[in-house]
Amino acid sequence: MGRLIARRSVSRVVAGEVRARADSIAVEEPLELRVGGVPLAVTMRTPGHDVELAHGFLHTEGVIGTADDLRLARYCDSFDDAGRNTYNVLDVTLAPHVPPPSTGVERNFYTTSSCGVCGKASLDAVRTKTRHSPANDTTTIAYEVLAVLPDALRERQQVFDRTGGLHAAGLFTPAGDLLVVREDVGRHNAVDKVIGWALLNGHVPARGLILIVSGRTSFELAQKAVMAGIPVLGAVSAPSSLAIDLAAESGLTLAGFIRNGNLNVYSRPDRVTT
Amino acid sequence: MGRLIARRSVSRVVAGEVRARADSIAVEEPLELRVGGVPLAVTMRTPGHDVELAHGFLHTEGVIGTADDLRLARYCDSFDDAGRNTYNVLDVTLAPHVPPPSTGVERNFYTTSSCGVCGKASLDAVRTKTRHSPANDTTTIAYEVLAVLPDALRERQQVFDRTGGLHAAGLFTPAGDLLVVREDVGRHNAVDKVIGWALLNGHVPARGLILIVSGRTSFELAQKAVMAGIPVLGAVSAPSSLAIDLAAESGLTLAGFIRNGNLNVYSRPDRVTT
Repeated sequence: MGRLIARRSVSRVVAGEVRARADSIAVEEPLELRVGGVPLAVTMRTPGHDVELAHGFLHTEGVIGTADDLRLARYCDSFDDAGRNTYNVLDVTLAPHVPPPSTGVERNFYTTSSCGVCGKASLDAVRTKTRHSPANDTTTIAYEVLAVLPDALRERQQVFDRTGGLHAAGLFTPAGDLLVVREDVGRHNAVDKVIGWALLNGHVPARGLILIVSGRTSFELAQKAVMAGIPVLGAVSAPSSLAIDLAAESGLTLAGFIRNGNLNVYSRPDRVTT
Repeated sequence: MGRLIARRSVSRVVAGEVRARADSIAVEEPLELRVGGVPLAVTMRTPGHDVELAHGFLHTEGVIGTADDLRLARYCDSFDDAGRNTYNVLDVTLAPHVPPPSTGVERNFYTTSSCGVCGKASLDAVRTKTRHSPANDTTTIAYEVLAVLPDALRERQQVFDRTGGLHAAGLFTPAGDLLVVREDVGRHNAVDKVIGWALLNGHVPARGLILIVSGRTSFELAQKAVMAGIPVLGAVSAPSSLAIDLAAESGLTLAGFIRNGNLNVYSRPDRVTT
């Protein structure tokens, strides 16, 4: 599946002079996820680690609780014009006791019948759906360790180094040891791949672990952390209002602007020791 | 609707010392878009300019061709726990001659029945759906002008200045004059708001105009530019492989890594003069 990087010709303009050259580009391809043969979602992603992506997506959407809930994942026969399998359609089989998701799974966390569509309803939906609330996790991490984790993540971004075009997510221990890093053109996909890896390797609920993301923190990323029971989420850039509100209501420690040895903690600062 | 910025308390850790303070945070709220009362999509967005967002989304998804195709947009009665209207549900009424979109509009560009799900099929779908191909647009822009447009965009990012948490998109003339800038927690929303503004102000097809985005270029952003007939799309960061392929097939000039007076042109470099 070595399809992470493609080559494209580019006209590079430096100081007004044009030079033609070949450049390394991050590959983006659609992935259609099917459950029992029924199309559930399409995401634009970096190919590779698709089985992890499926596990992480289905877990953070509340469809599966454990790796055993997903019995089989296989690429469908899906061919391009040249007759090659695209490896862009993944069909998963759930265990018999697992109810199949309703279509429109994307809307589960954004709306409830009680109060229409609002941020508060989105927070309530996550709270009722998570199987692994991080609220009572007693993990602590020294701020000196947390402050350098984005650099540790950055050092492992092999595709970013060559293309400049990928988001990354990584899972660390409170001692700063890296368990897994995943890169993707979509930041939610990078997190799904990390959480899928954790689910497949016995790390969910992810008690005592730290999730680091390369960009900003949205509601969606905080939701994924809460669903997997991750107690600490740190980001290089800013969080949104709804990410902070979800973290505060769920007992997730949310850190942001982790740069130059400094950082902000927006919720549950008791887990960050100084 | 002054809901762009919220205040949250934060523990700021600088050189190991913790200081509590209030911080300005970019607001994120869900928006449910309904067409004729039927829910079509939910997006997490920065509140405000929602009518533009609806126009831009529906145009770039191929549902409406002109501003006249959308007759009415109004917020539904959607109340939070305190009985306040959330202004998070927008219902639009299409003109009688406009076919309503099928649900699952998100999948339109990612798959066709002919070859399953693959990048090539996604490109073909855009080509058959666009009403305003940029291929024959004779616009040119001097590289010196293009090279400074991201800085001009950055100067107008008022919410980013206070929160550090927003993407931006802007529409410029080839002389470098800014027509409109929009900021949003979602980069696709920022582009939809800009294109919606253009549609409502007689600038679609957007011949002769330059779209600048603050981050990376994905397939989705290139698709939106092509659908609106924009001839030049420039970005501060890297493009994906599928964004380049779509630009090349559609006759869109795609520029990236516009930094420090230098830039890369990935397709149709004839529009960038040196």
